[in-house]
Amino acid sequence: MRIKVINGPNLNLLGKRERDIYGEMTLAEIEQQLTNLARELGCQVDFFQSNHEGELIDAIHACRSGYDGILINPAAFTHYAYAIRDAIAAVELPVVEVHMSNIYQREPFRHESVTGAVCRGQVAGFGPNSYLLGLQGLVEIIGQG
Amino acid sequence: MRIKVINGPNLNLLGKRERDIYGEMTLAEIEQQLTNLARELGCQVDFFQSNHEGELIDAIHACRSGYDGILINPAAFTHYAYAIRDAIAAVELPVVEVHMSNIYQREPFRHESVTGAVCRGQVAGFGPNSYLLGLQGLVEIIGQG
Amino acid sequence: MRIKVINGPNLNLLGKRERDIYGEMTLAEIEQQLTNLARELGCQVDFFQSNHEGELIDAIHACRSGYDGILINPAAFTHYAYAIRDAIAAVELPVVEVHMSNIYQREPFRHESVTGAVCRGQVAGFGPNSYLLGLQGLVEIIGQG
Amino acid sequence: MRIKVINGPNLNLLGKRERDIYGEMTLAEIEQQLTNLARELGCQVDFFQSNHEGELIDAIHACRSGYDGILINPAAFTHYAYAIRDAIAAVELPVVEVHMSNIYQREPFRHESVTGAVCRGQVAGFGPNSYLLGLQGLVEIIGQG
Amino acid sequence: MRIKVINGPNLNLLGKRERDIYGEMTLAEIEQQLTNLARELGCQVDFFQSNHEGELIDAIHACRSGYDGILINPAAFTHYAYAIRDAIAAVELPVVEVHMSNIYQREPFRHESVTGAVCRGQVAGFGPNSYLLGLQGLVEIIGQG
Amino acid sequence: MRIKVINGPNLNLLGKRERDIYGEMTLAEIEQQLTNLARELGCQVDFFQSNHEGELIDAIHACRSGYDGILINPAAFTHYAYAIRDAIAAVELPVVEVHMSNIYQREPFRHESVTGAVCRGQVAGFGPNSYLLGLQGLVEIIGQG
Amino acid sequence: MRIKVINGPNLNLLGKRERDIYGEMTLAEIEQQLTNLARELGCQVDFFQSNHEGELIDAIHACRSGYDGILINPAAFTHYAYAIRDAIAAVELPVVEVHMSNIYQREPFRHESVTGAVCRGQVAGFGPNSYLLGLQGLVEIIGQG
Amino acid sequence: MRIKVINGPNLNLLGKRERDIYGEMTLAEIEQQLTNLARELGCQVDFFQSNHEGELIDAIHACRSGYDGILINPAAFTHYAYAIRDAIAAVELPVVEVHMSNIYQREPFRHESVTGAVCRGQVAGFGPNSYLLGLQGLVEIIGQG
Amino acid sequence: MRIKVINGPNLNLLGKRERDIYGEMTLAEIEQQLTNLARELGCQVDFFQSNHEGELIDAIHACRSGYDGILINPAAFTHYAYAIRDAIAAVELPVVEVHMSNIYQREPFRHESVTGAVCRGQVAGFGPNSYLLGLQGLVEIIGQG
Amino acid sequence: MRIKVINGPNLNLLGKRERDIYGEMTLAEIEQQLTNLARELGCQVDFFQSNHEGELIDAIHACRSGYDGILINPAAFTHYAYAIRDAIAAVELPVVEVHMSNIYQREPFRHESVTGAVCRGQVAGFGPNSYLLGLQGLVEIIGQG
Amino acid sequence: MRIKVINGPNLNLLGKRERDIYGEMTLAEIEQQLTNLARELGCQVDFFQSNHEGELIDAIHACRSGYDGILINPAAFTHYAYAIRDAIAAVELPVVEVHMSNIYQREPFRHESVTGAVCRGQVAGFGPNSYLLGLQGLVEIIGQG
Amino acid sequence: MRIKVINGPNLNLLGKRERDIYGEMTLAEIEQQLTNLARELGCQVDFFQSNHEGELIDAIHACRSGYDGILINPAAFTHYAYAIRDAIAAVELPVVEVHMSNIYQREPFRHESVTGAVCRGQVAGFGPNSYLLGLQGLVEIIGQG
Repeated sequence: MRIKVINGPNLNLLGKRERDIYGEMTLAEIEQQLTNLARELGCQVDFFQSNHEGELIDAIHACRSGYDGILINPAAFTHYAYAIRDAIAAVELPVVEVHMSNIYQREPFRHESVTGAVCRGQVAGFGPNSYLLGLQGLVEIIGQG
Repeated sequence: MRIKVINGPNLNLLGKRERDIYGEMTLAEIEQQLTNLARELGCQVDFFQSNHEGELIDAIHACRSGYDGILINPAAFTHYAYAIRDAIAAVELPVVEVHMSNIYQREPFRHESVTGAVCRGQVAGFGPNSYLLGLQGLVEIIGQG
Repeated sequence: MRIKVINGPNLNLLGKRERDIYGEMTLAEIEQQLTNLARELGCQVDFFQSNHEGELIDAIHACRSGYDGILINPAAFTHYAYAIRDAIAAVELPVVEVHMSNIYQREPFRHESVTGAVCRGQVAGFGPNSYLLGLQGLVEIIGQG
Repeated sequence: MRIKVINGPNLNLLGKRERDIYGEMTLAEIEQQLTNLARELGCQVDFFQSNHEGELIDAIHACRSGYDGILINPAAFTHYAYAIRDAIAAVELPVVEVHMSNIYQREPFRHESVTGAVCRGQVAGFGPNSYLLGLQGLVEIIGQG
Repeated sequence: MRIKVINGPNLNLLGKRERDIYGEMTLAEIEQQLTNLARELGCQVDFFQSNHEGELIDAIHACRSGYDGILINPAAFTHYAYAIRDAIAAVELPVVEVHMSNIYQREPFRHESVTGAVCRGQVAGFGPNSYLLGLQGLVEIIGQG
Repeated sequence: MRIKVINGPNLNLLGKRERDIYGEMTLAEIEQQLTNLARELGCQVDFFQSNHEGELIDAIHACRSGYDGILINPAAFTHYAYAIRDAIAAVELPVVEVHMSNIYQREPFRHESVTGAVCRGQVAGFGPNSYLLGLQGLVEIIGQG
Repeated sequence: MRIKVINGPNLNLLGKRERDIYGEMTLAEIEQQLTNLARELGCQVDFFQSNHEGELIDAIHACRSGYDGILINPAAFTHYAYAIRDAIAAVELPVVEVHMSNIYQREPFRHESVTGAVCRGQVAGFGPNSYLLGLQGLVEIIGQG
Repeated sequence: MRIKVINGPNLNLLGKRERDIYGEMTLAEIEQQLTNLARELGCQVDFFQSNHEGELIDAIHACRSGYDGILINPAAFTHYAYAIRDAIAAVELPVVEVHMSNIYQREPFRHESVTGAVCRGQVAGFGPNSYLLGLQGLVEIIGQG
Repeated sequence: MRIKVINGPNLNLLGKRERDIYGEMTLAEIEQQLTNLARELGCQVDFFQSNHEGELIDAIHACRSGYDGILINPAAFTHYAYAIRDAIAAVELPVVEVHMSNIYQREPFRHESVTGAVCRGQVAGFGPNSYLLGLQGLVEIIGQG
Repeated sequence: MRIKVINGPNLNLLGKRERDIYGEMTLAEIEQQLTNLARELGCQVDFFQSNHEGELIDAIHACRSGYDGILINPAAFTHYAYAIRDAIAAVELPVVEVHMSNIYQREPFRHESVTGAVCRGQVAGFGPNSYLLGLQGLVEIIGQG
Repeated sequence: MRIKVINGPNLNLLGKRERDIYGEMTLAEIEQQLTNLARELGCQVDFFQSNHEGELIDAIHACRSGYDGILINPAAFTHYAYAIRDAIAAVELPVVEVHMSNIYQREPFRHESVTGAVCRGQVAGFGPNSYLLGLQGLVEIIGQG
Repeated sequence: MRIKVINGPNLNLLGKRERDIYGEMTLAEIEQQLTNLARELGCQVDFFQSNHEGELIDAIHACRSGYDGILINPAAFTHYAYAIRDAIAAVELPVVEVHMSNIYQREPFRHESVTGAVCRGQVAGFGPNSYLLGLQGLVEIIGQG
């Protein structure tokens, strides 16, 4: 079982900027935790991050061969990137959406999700742990076929 | 560590009606799974379900003594019960909100959450597994103090 | 054939207050008329009234055993009680909604119905006669199986 | 007692098209059922159908002499024809509005009624039976003077 | 100078129904007053009334030959009949819109005018006198070329 | 019969600025025309113009003694000055509102009138002639008592 | 003169939680102050608090015998409980609504009041003193008959 | 293969009025071009134009016998005539909607289409050529059965 | 302790016009009652009324020296005068807003308050008594420092 | 005459994914059909596809030299990509927008077009044929100069 | 070259109140800085401040003779004073609007500007420096004639 | 002191297209003027332009090392590019937003700014001069540290 973890715009700065909102942990550290958990769950995880909407779409498309599911944090694209929504719908793989912060406690524009309707589940508000919980949920969905 | 699991209106019918939407598992079976997981995580879980908004508020209030966190599925109350929102804010305990179905794939009135802003995290769309993921997330939040 | 007639908040005051809007007839008198009509139609009717949303949900759930349909006047709950809507959807029985007054001639908030979409039919504006017409319509729906 | 039954646009196709939505019964068959019921109730019914808003207005006006009430299914005009609303208000006769389908289960534009506020009552969702229930309710209103 | 006076739906009932809103004067009496005033102003007026949107459009089109301007009371069509709006724009004659009642003191849907933007002026709220004032204003506009 | 003609903000610049919108005629010239017409109609007109909302309210109040009606062009205050609306309602005299331009052909914010609902009639779109038609209409309303 | 003081959801926690918003005083202490003031004003006050919408409706109904007025703080129910609104309208007693905090300084959903239109007066923003001012105002209304 | 070409209100004036918007070509000339193109495509076209909503509905209904598809320009009715929408849905023939002008470059009310959802395709903005392109598209749809 | 009582537009007409809405008492009589109550409470009250938004702002500014609080009835300015809102925020004195009528029972535009968020409390619906209750509440706020 | 055919995000997957919506034909096959048609019409077509908003803008800019028009399917960018809208406006070439599916029969967000207002025409709903019809319409526009 | 600097309501309190928002500098000090800068730029500046909407309109009108441009900070009037908007449009001089604070970081009602559309430029968010930058921009606009 | 000047989509076409809106000056000429001004102000400016949302984000990120502030014209991205907004927030440098045209005089979608709330100031409407004024304002902000 192989899963792609895709991170959207500005997440490369995790742990380097705005630590009061996003915490101290860097993206590399989160990815390390995901790798550890994946080993326990008996699956493999690969990582991709980009600030380019088009590159994210390409990455989602590329998952069509060799991957069983996608764990995605679309960051700000969550709220308007219909092209990413269509890419998720097109790959026909189970996709789980994660957010580190509680999007309902932030600005109103973050309350709307255009990607939510084409994902299988959402996890939000647990900080870096959102990724770990999301991975577990995704593995279970894939396991159920 | 002691956690209250609170279920809102119509969830007593889980596994008995509308199985195409909510699945085959009953609330008792979900609660059994939560008890098992809690044992693994080294915490204790107690359960409460009601179709009455007032009883849910009373139950939330009662958690002020003896509990460290609340796992809640407010069901339809998620979308309009500001009194439950105020109760969650008042107990000053970490609260995690869970939904079995993906609320973004259902009717528009289910896309809004009035309780979301006072909870610490949300998990939605994983079926019965939403509860298990939510419990894990909540335990971690409590552990971080 | 057995039918439950369920009345929502403030309808216990029918015929006692605001007679210019709701008429002179008490709820007991309306129930007597429904009993008489039921006898003619060859079915049995039982009655329940409550000002509590939770009790109404419990009553709807209870109809799962022993009842063939529900005649309901949700009163003010018509306009915001999504938990009652979910209860109606969950019992999987034919439900007919009635209102004594013409809701389109009253305040704008009464023009919206959150329960309407899960009921089979509506009758509104005929005073106490709305109940009698609604019962006839419901009996025919049940008869058609 | 004499009542005019007025049907709006596209209802001449009843039972001939879109039978999955509107059923198998033709308008002629519904009118026959209304004639039978009217005989039982001791009143007389006449019929009119048109796809022309102006002809419907003329027909409503014509009821001022010789008729005691109107049973109307304005079909799509329900949702935007303010001129029909004004015509109903102008004739100063009791008018009852009927719909075969449950308008709350269809497209959002069908949830609004511009004619509802000037009618005495509504019946919706009972298929052809909506007409029969509506006629009974109208006869009773006329009988009460 | 020749002017067409066009009246929309339900205005044929003026002075016969709802006299508390529209007054005691019939449409024939208003037309007689307009004929008298036209004679004083040295112009000729012809009349047309219909409850049919299509006939009103045909009548507006017909004014292209032989008429110098149009005085119109579109009644309820004021608020939704974009086809009449297009007809007014197409004839390229000065058109003045009149209303007997003050549309700002009535229901909200009467506050919007879809025909207003293609007319030259509006007169509202003076009862039958709205027509006389509108005719004077129209004659002056035509006189100014 | 004595009538006050009240003009709102920026109308002192009529005929001096933006002549393509408002025409060549100055306010003094319009007032002269009104004086001439008033003489024909057998009434007396006095004039007031201010750019100050408060002075306009004071002027409306002052009409309570010695005046039989008010002809007002509230200009931009038409669209937001609820205090002027309350002043018009308070004096309990017939008030007619006039606008030189067709407000439906201008920016959307000019389509709403907060003063319209408390005036007896409106005249708009006839240029300076709007005042003359408005005066005639007002005199007739006063004459009818 | 006998007055019922009714408190809505979560107010039982006053003085125990969120003291920065609601202050240090408990509900029992506020009720003691009201009893003292009532004695000065020569009237009697009884108290009721519930987190249940239905119980609040029952309590309002019960005031029909033996009470001259109601002082109510509906708390979160202020913003959506149309059933409480209907109960207040039904008892036909003078009702005064109070809020401890200034609802205009809080979240937007707290700016709307569905109960306000059927109450006689509101007092908000004075902390516990809102109750005392509200009682004085209510007693005066009852005294004026 | 036989196709009905239906034109809505004001299109009889094409080429005679507002030539800067709609061009110099008359409706008869467009129909001639369509006849020529139909001959090339091996099908037959018949024409109908009316300013009456009801006549357009009747014409759509009549296509049920003898026609394989409809090419329609509903003109202003595009934006509010739900009765025409229902007629298109009822005939169960492929319908293609055409507009000469680019409706997105005109007033906002022309951006909404109530008929669009029940048509198979739209062509807009090519002037008279919109009809020719629409006919080609319709013929291909019919050919695919 | 010295308090300024400021009244907004049209309140100079209290007791003289629209007595069915605002009662029989004049502003002078209300001010006399406030003077009497102030004497009892051991404070001094001064009065100002204006129909001019600018004068009200100047008056609010002037309170910076010599006054401890402001009791204000902004009347219609409540609903749109952001400049008055800014003035209240700028003086940094406790301000209490009063309304004689219940603003929730009147037109929708009166339900919004732009000044409410910068005042400490509101009292509405008690007629002239709203001023007396508001003064008591304000004095207590000042007393608490 | 030389035309650029530009396809937006996810269209590279045509015929490979979601065939129930977009059909069996691949983008390469559609491009082949366009090449054939272009030969018949005596013009040349070149192709470009990208999932990157920025690359699409560059491609549109590049058409300024050597191209006479653009045929574009902006896919999901249709609904929010104002930067593409500006690019279309900037090249000052005739641009025709095509969609394979009927955008009015899909999700509401697809009903809005931000690019529509700067294109010369739209064709939608004919499947792959939308491209062929659009090309014909575009060639004609270019031919007219 | 002569420029009028006009300041709206509450700006007379600059540097005296709410220094955390508006800074420590008084209006007199800002005006002194503007005088110095004007001398450098070879132009003359005069100043006016008022809390009265009408006085600001009068001041704008007065600029028609003797002034080449206006630098205005309408303060709260920015958001609702359409009469000031009309005054700016009427004087036909270049007007530049300045705000000290970043209006997008404050309450939502401050995000809308009714005066913005008739000004030539805006400068906001630089504190007192907004005035200096605005003056430079205005002088350049005037210099370009 | 070193400042990055970042220009968004389509601005590479300045002075080459749509000169009636954006003027005759090319981006290179504007950049030359900025270089000259920077020399006077004692700071250094570097330039970057891209049509790619992702590249703009990278460029903003890159400013974290070696730059003291950013002068940005996000062009169309101003109105929806939340990812750019987050990038601006993340770099924690002072950012000033500039627009050449007056965005309030253009289409409504240009009135909204999603980047405005995270910038320190805005300058709009002065043509190329907007950049020069913005640079001065930014330098002053940086100088104040």
